[in-house]
Amino acid sequence: MSHDSTRELRDLEVVGGNGLLHRRAFLTGSGVLAAAFTGYRLSDTAHAQQLIDEPWSKAKGVTIPEYATPSPYEKGVARTLSNPRGEPRTQHARTPHHLINGTFTPNGLHFVISHSGAPDIDPARHRLVIHGLVRRPLEFTLDTLARYPMVSRMTFVECGGNSAPLYSNQPVQAGVQAIHGLVSCSEWTGVPLSMLLDEAGIDPKAKWIIAEGADSLALSRSVPMAKALDDAMIALYQNGERIMPGNGYPMRLLLPGWEGNMNVKWLRRLKLVEQPALSYYEARTYAPILPNGKAYQFNFLQEVKSFITHPSPGLTLSGPGFYEISGVAYSANGRISKVMVTADGGRSWAEAALQEPVHSKAFARVRAPWRWNGGPVVLQSRAWDEGGNVQPTRPQIIAARGQTKAPVTNLMAFPSQHYNGPTSWTVEASGEVKHVYA
Amino acid sequence: MSHDSTRELRDLEVVGGNGLLHRRAFLTGSGVLAAAFTGYRLSDTAHAQQLIDEPWSKAKGVTIPEYATPSPYEKGVARTLSNPRGEPRTQHARTPHHLINGTFTPNGLHFVISHSGAPDIDPARHRLVIHGLVRRPLEFTLDTLARYPMVSRMTFVECGGNSAPLYSNQPVQAGVQAIHGLVSCSEWTGVPLSMLLDEAGIDPKAKWIIAEGADSLALSRSVPMAKALDDAMIALYQNGERIMPGNGYPMRLLLPGWEGNMNVKWLRRLKLVEQPALSYYEARTYAPILPNGKAYQFNFLQEVKSFITHPSPGLTLSGPGFYEISGVAYSANGRISKVMVTADGGRSWAEAALQEPVHSKAFARVRAPWRWNGGPVVLQSRAWDEGGNVQPTRPQIIAARGQTKAPVTNLMAFPSQHYNGPTSWTVEASGEVKHVYA
Repeated sequence: MSHDSTRELRDLEVVGGNGLLHRRAFLTGSGVLAAAFTGYRLSDTAHAQQLIDEPWSKAKGVTIPEYATPSPYEKGVARTLSNPRGEPRTQHARTPHHLINGTFTPNGLHFVISHSGAPDIDPARHRLVIHGLVRRPLEFTLDTLARYPMVSRMTFVECGGNSAPLYSNQPVQAGVQAIHGLVSCSEWTGVPLSMLLDEAGIDPKAKWIIAEGADSLALSRSVPMAKALDDAMIALYQNGERIMPGNGYPMRLLLPGWEGNMNVKWLRRLKLVEQPALSYYEARTYAPILPNGKAYQFNFLQEVKSFITHPSPGLTLSGPGFYEISGVAYSANGRISKVMVTADGGRSWAEAALQEPVHSKAFARVRAPWRWNGGPVVLQSRAWDEGGNVQPTRPQIIAARGQTKAPVTNLMAFPSQHYNGPTSWTVEASGEVKHVYA
Repeated sequence: MSHDSTRELRDLEVVGGNGLLHRRAFLTGSGVLAAAFTGYRLSDTAHAQQLIDEPWSKAKGVTIPEYATPSPYEKGVARTLSNPRGEPRTQHARTPHHLINGTFTPNGLHFVISHSGAPDIDPARHRLVIHGLVRRPLEFTLDTLARYPMVSRMTFVECGGNSAPLYSNQPVQAGVQAIHGLVSCSEWTGVPLSMLLDEAGIDPKAKWIIAEGADSLALSRSVPMAKALDDAMIALYQNGERIMPGNGYPMRLLLPGWEGNMNVKWLRRLKLVEQPALSYYEARTYAPILPNGKAYQFNFLQEVKSFITHPSPGLTLSGPGFYEISGVAYSANGRISKVMVTADGGRSWAEAALQEPVHSKAFARVRAPWRWNGGPVVLQSRAWDEGGNVQPTRPQIIAARGQTKAPVTNLMAFPSQHYNGPTSWTVEASGEVKHVYA
């Protein structure tokens, strides 16, 4: 390391091993961080060449359409599909977290899990019924729901099986889309469920609500009354427009922070009852066997988690120098309060910056300045929420939930769910990023 | 009015003429608001019929695609185009504010004004150059910019000509999309411009920056250095994904709250200079003649404004009873602090609820509970920002800027820009909504 770069690193306040910098480097106007980028400077001669017009500056542009779609150059920014021909089994569409940025997921790229595709619902004929232990059963059309007071909130939805590849006894060679692509974050707008329940009149004997979708499986889950009366919503809009077909068009149940499968899509009825239904997805799929032989059930909360999206596998670093480490963090227990990052596999840590405002039960965008010295490093993040919860270490969660006995290659077959331990990426001297355990 | 509905209205705290209710009715769990909806109740017999399966509940669904698009039933939720065949003149694509909800605009529906379509830019070849009065000219590719620290912020972009139909001496018979469709709000993510200027090294003589696009017009605008060093951004992502082609792909200048045209799209260079360029769009289009014979120029700020989106023309009310009045409010001067609504053309007012969190220089979603008695009413909103600014009345702004001498039918020809007075909708006994002056 030259004398100059040593001085530069000191000015940038190295606070962790392998070049982690203090997040205060983000304060612009200091001129300190700018010094880190001198490698990108061009001579006047070189820059002048850039003012030559490219072909697109000399031609008429593409006509603006009624509904915009991304540039054809972005066709690689897509969800990966587990069942692209729609065979009669579950379909997974995973969010490419490494190719997007900001605090939420665009609608085109929100993850989907569906067991029978997206039902082709005519919104003029769709109905929502509230019945069971109520004083007056109610029926709603989209038009009647449009008259009700609405709320908007940013919130993530995460599949209970997201991140399950980390239960493999050896690190699967996959990136953030394959490992963590079953969580996304949107602004959802709709009618508070508590208001509709008020109107129906809750029988005091009612302790649970069975929510059922209009898909061909009539997928159903049981929801405790306390959550229904807290922040549950009948969501009608996703990021400003009507909900995407795969995400529940024309309406879904939204239970902020709770297991994705419970946020019943294509919602057609809510039945108030005394006991949970013990339906297929709560009695089997989301009730895996634990190492002690018992099953866990009703593991509602998607607990505090974080992962690094930039860099991550598939994004190769182009050489030593400054980079921003970026990722997302979220928790069913409220706001993210702190995220620490390490570049040396956990020997030293630096606190990351969080993009303000940080919303409760939503993605927080995590950013940390970093100067890569070109040697091998191990990056990892660890998040805390405002409830004081912290991500467990991988050994802790494996002790509680188990892991596979052999390295796993099928991303669909894992022993457990709700993995919220850390994810580690190594950056090799070539700039390539790989998944490791650390 | 029956005795029952009189009592109901009292419980709901009427705070303005023609049925405006206190926003506290939104507090759920009180059971008070629920009483307003009893007209939607169905008998048990009727609701039971709804549990019959519709065809889509008995068929395999549509296969989930790599990139989601709205349901075919939503094809009417589209931008209106002023020049759908891309003839050699300006193209406008207007946001359908009456058909969306929440606090921002989905990318498919963000407004566009372009004078030569959307240039078909190859992102691998596109360059941004910073030159002129700097110590070292710099050139950036998308790959080098990806290494810089980024920020995300919600902010609106509004054309200086948005709402100009309100300069007609008679109210144009048009809806919110035609009148106010040239403003939208997104989360933009990118690199703070101040950081890149720090790196280039600003010559103290530099007071302005000329920003130029890579479109075939090489559209350029002059930006004061103070704004460039404040909250300006080189935006790379729009609502999480790469910027839409019509909104500046692969990068645009973002000047939160400033005249839309200055947020130069397809940005290819920034030249630091001593004096503004007096380019076409600042010396002609956005420098209209005032009634006193002078022109205004450099009217940078999009000042505090609000308009009601629900109800608005095209959304017919289906009969007396409860409705939510909803709209948007925004200001270049910071956060919206208060929005008042009236249902009697301004004789009495009620404070609306604002969706939290309210972001600076971004859409605030405005909501007010209202019980329509079925008679004719005039709805209007008025917004204040945290700087203490309030929307002027229409007579105030007309006195300063002028109006047409004859009723206007061509939505492109108006005497001025930056209209930020009120918009009034009348609801007729039939439930139809029309534009009026009040």
